[in-house]
Amino acid sequence: MASPASAVTGSAGELVRGGLAPESFALGTFEVEGQATAGYIQGGQIWPLEEALPGHGNLEVLEVIRNWSTLQSSISKPDSPGASLADVKLLTPVRVVRPPMCVGKNYQEHVKEVDSWKGPGITQPSVPTTPIIFTKAAESVIGPGEAVQYPHGVSSEVDYEAELAVVIGTGGRGISREDALGHVFGYTILNDITARDLQRNHQQWFLGKSVDTFCPVGPWIVPASQIDGQNLGIKCWVNEELRQESRTSEMIFDIRDLIHTISAAVTLQPGDIIATGTPAGVGAGFKPPRWLVPGDTVTISVEGIGILQNAIE
Amino acid sequence: MASPASAVTGSAGELVRGGLAPESFALGTFEVEGQATAGYIQGGQIWPLEEALPGHGNLEVLEVIRNWSTLQSSISKPDSPGASLADVKLLTPVRVVRPPMCVGKNYQEHVKEVDSWKGPGITQPSVPTTPIIFTKAAESVIGPGEAVQYPHGVSSEVDYEAELAVVIGTGGRGISREDALGHVFGYTILNDITARDLQRNHQQWFLGKSVDTFCPVGPWIVPASQIDGQNLGIKCWVNEELRQESRTSEMIFDIRDLIHTISAAVTLQPGDIIATGTPAGVGAGFKPPRWLVPGDTVTISVEGIGILQNAIE
Repeated sequence: MASPASAVTGSAGELVRGGLAPESFALGTFEVEGQATAGYIQGGQIWPLEEALPGHGNLEVLEVIRNWSTLQSSISKPDSPGASLADVKLLTPVRVVRPPMCVGKNYQEHVKEVDSWKGPGITQPSVPTTPIIFTKAAESVIGPGEAVQYPHGVSSEVDYEAELAVVIGTGGRGISREDALGHVFGYTILNDITARDLQRNHQQWFLGKSVDTFCPVGPWIVPASQIDGQNLGIKCWVNEELRQESRTSEMIFDIRDLIHTISAAVTLQPGDIIATGTPAGVGAGFKPPRWLVPGDTVTISVEGIGILQNAIE
Repeated sequence: MASPASAVTGSAGELVRGGLAPESFALGTFEVEGQATAGYIQGGQIWPLEEALPGHGNLEVLEVIRNWSTLQSSISKPDSPGASLADVKLLTPVRVVRPPMCVGKNYQEHVKEVDSWKGPGITQPSVPTTPIIFTKAAESVIGPGEAVQYPHGVSSEVDYEAELAVVIGTGGRGISREDALGHVFGYTILNDITARDLQRNHQQWFLGKSVDTFCPVGPWIVPASQIDGQNLGIKCWVNEELRQESRTSEMIFDIRDLIHTISAAVTLQPGDIIATGTPAGVGAGFKPPRWLVPGDTVTISVEGIGILQNAIE
C-alpha cells in the first residue's frame, strides 16, 4: 500500500510507533488467530489487553470504556515483549454500536472552500451559528487498512474528510460545557468519506455520508489522559500529496461545545463517536474538484494519535 | 388518556379491533408477566406468537421478520381465545436495531406549508427532486401509549408528523424499483416528533428529530400480504382535533422509489424502518404555529393498520 511515510513521520522511530508518542499508550482491536481481540499499544508494539489489565479476563474495548473509571488505574505496560504493530492486522478499534455523530463546517477555511463549491441545493448560510450535526450509518464503519468500496454507478464525486474523533466514556444527557471533557474516554481518527453528489442532491446528508464502507475509523484510541484533543496537528494525504493540514485548535465549535450541544437533545452513551469536522483541503475545494478514484490511498495523521490509511478499491 | 374514538373508528367493532380490518392479522410485542413477548393480533385479541406459530419456540418479532419467507405459511390464528387488546400493554412492535430512516417533504401540501413557515436557515428548493433522507436515533424510539418527554429548556417548538412506516423484510443493496415491494415485510405507524427550532437552527435535522422519546412506533406491524401500503388513509389528531388527513397514495416519492434510493447507497437490513413522510397539517403549518405542549395527546390512525397514541408529558 502506498504510504507517504517520510511526510507523515519525522523520524524512523516515529514511524515504528505509528505516530503515537513514545510514552503514550492506546487501546485498540486486532486479529489474533482470526479473533477480534482487544489490544494495548505502546512503543510500536501491541499486546492482548488482558496482559496489560490482568485479572479482568478477555474484555472487549467497549467494556473497558464502560468501566474505565475503575479500570484505568490498573492498566500498565506488560513486561513481556509484545507483537510488532507491523506484524498484526488492526481492526476497528471499538465495536461501533451507534451511528457516528459528525459535525459539518467546523473549520473556517473549510466553510470557505465548500461555499465556493456548493451546488444549487446547498444554500445554507456560510459560517454556522450552531453546530451542524448529522450521522453516518454505523454499518458504514470500516477499520484501518480496510478498503473503501467505490460506489460505481451511484456516485462519481467521492471525497475525503480527515477528522479528529472523540470517543465518549461516561454517557449522559444535559452535559454542561464545564463537565464535557470529563465525558471523553479518548481520541481516534475518522475519515468522513462523502459522496458529494448524493450529499447535494438529497439535501440532508445522511445518504451521501453513509454509503457502505464510507467511514474508516482507527487505528486505535488514545485515552484522554495522554493527549489534549483540542490542540493536535491534523494532516491528510491523497497518495503522496498533502491535501489537508491544520490543527484541532482551529475548530469553530470546540469539543466542549459539541458534547454540550448534542447531549442537550440526545443521551450520549459510552463508546459513542463524535467526529469533529474537517479542515480545508477536501477534493471539493479544488477548481476543478479532485474526486477520489479507485486505486487512490487516503492517509490521515493526527498528532499524538497515529495514522489511518485506507485505499479506494 | 383522551381518545378521539368516535372520529378514529367507524363503528364499535372497528374500535375493538384497534383499526385492524377483521380478516387481517398483525405481529407486535406485548408485556406478559413483565417480559416483552412477541404477539399475534387479530379481531381485537392478542396471543403469544408461539401459539400462532407452533414448533418454533419463543421467537422475537425481529427473528420472525428475518425468517419470514419460511415462516409465513405456518402462521395461523390460534384456536384458543386470546387476551383482549384492551387488557394488555403493547410495546414497540419490533426491536429497533438501526435508526429509523425518514423522508422529508414527501407530500405536496406539506411542502407548501413548511415553505410558508420556514425560517432563515431553511432555504432549500421547494419540492424535492430526489428524496430527502435523514435518520432519527434508534434510542429515541418508544412504544404505543408511552409518553413523549417534553424537552423543557431545549425546545419550545415541538411538532407531530403522522407517517406510514415501512418495515423491511429481506435486506439488500441496489434494489430495483421493480423488486422493491418484495423487500417489504409490513407496515406500521411512526410519529416523527420534531423540535422545529433545533431542526432549523442546526440545518441538518438529526438533532431536532432525535430528542429522547421523539419516535413513537406502533401499535403493531401488519404484514404486506394484508394491505396495500401505497393506498391507505392517514389521519392525525391532537387531542380531539383532526389536524392531518391524507392518503399514502399522495406521496411524491412512493415506497418503491424510497427503497430503491436508499439501497443504492446503504445495504438495507431486515427490520429496518423507513418512515415515508408526513402529509399537510403539522403544527408548523398553522399561522401562528401550534406547538405541542405537555398534556397534549397525539393520535394517529392509518387505515388497515390501527391507532398509535402517545401523550406529551
